Amino acid sequence: MAEALILHQDCRSGNCYKIALTAALLGLPLERRDYDILRGQTRTPEFLAEVNASGNIPVLQVGTRFLPESNAACWYLAEGSALIPTDRFERADMLRWMFFEQYNHEPNIATLRFWLTFVGEANLNEFQQAQIMPKRIAGEAALKLMDEHLATRDWMVGQHLSLADITLYAYTHVCEGGAFRLGDYHHVCRWLKRVASQPGYVAMG
Amino acid sequence: MAEALILHQDCRSGNCYKIALTAALLGLPLERRDYDILRGQTRTPEFLAEVNASGNIPVLQVGTRFLPESNAACWYLAEGSALIPTDRFERADMLRWMFFEQYNHEPNIATLRFWLTFVGEANLNEFQQAQIMPKRIAGEAALKLMDEHLATRDWMVGQHLSLADITLYAYTHVCEGGAFRLGDYHHVCRWLKRVASQPGYVAMG
Repeated sequence: MAEALILHQDCRSGNCYKIALTAALLGLPLERRDYDILRGQTRTPEFLAEVNASGNIPVLQVGTRFLPESNAACWYLAEGSALIPTDRFERADMLRWMFFEQYNHEPNIATLRFWLTFVGEANLNEFQQAQIMPKRIAGEAALKLMDEHLATRDWMVGQHLSLADITLYAYTHVCEGGAFRLGDYHHVCRWLKRVASQPGYVAMG
Repeated sequence: MAEALILHQDCRSGNCYKIALTAALLGLPLERRDYDILRGQTRTPEFLAEVNASGNIPVLQVGTRFLPESNAACWYLAEGSALIPTDRFERADMLRWMFFEQYNHEPNIATLRFWLTFVGEANLNEFQQAQIMPKRIAGEAALKLMDEHLATRDWMVGQHLSLADITLYAYTHVCEGGAFRLGDYHHVCRWLKRVASQPGYVAMG
């Protein structure tokens, strides 16, 4: 990787952690710059002008270019490595689980964790309050689908660890912060241990 | 493409349309099998057992294998074609917009279109009613971000049409079905015409 890699992050974010974990498993040097999203540090005029106009993190900086969206950043880092399957169908199937993660998993599990652990239930507005129950139901459905999938295999796709595992690991392993009952999902729990035992693994934070 | 391609679809779905449009632009033969999601035809025991355990469409069938998630299916079809940039950063940047589409765009714009055009506002439950306003705001933010991005370029990524354009086109061009004011987004409107004028383009439905 010829250009310097800088991760603009909040270290409590699983989306940021995915990128750090991918870099660690690949042995890539990654500079990390911290922002506190609860203090609006990603909504400053400087951040919006220079890093990401939408005010979101993570952003992976590659030299002078900026790449938002956690799963796209993981893809960028992992191209050509063993974290992306060489088989065409498996590669698309890996992306399938990464889109599932952003559509069915993160908006429910990560959002409830953010609301309940960092914002505080008493501080939620009426729109957020109304979304707790549908997000609970949808998050449980996502965990159940993963658990059934992992009942007959060690990894989400193919025979090896891939970005599908890394990106889904990030918020699954801290889902109790959103009051999900992780212990109900036995196959998921065994898979979490499998991911955490990989050489180069780093913990969140 | 050696194996037969079958799209399990509801022809009103923009997520299904993305895949059909990608195949059409690439000149790939694609058999289409129709289901009516409003009549529960993707929740039958047969569908859940054979096509997709989560009961969602689209699913791209490749021979005897099944690939859910619209953007992953588009990727599968387009690998090795001009619809995916050859530059590593641009390729990741294309995925960035495809994840943006599934996280910031589709859950707001497609969902409001589905609720208002196909379900009917009077038939929404209280959780859905409470989400109309936040989805309106988030959908407008997504369209505004696209409009600003397209103010200085013809295509979402690089100098050519890519999957970023195709996947974002699908629900943007019918966003008025969700009561979004498409005419407010001038650069988006010009870009929609650009996409629709591509050789091989097919309309939705």
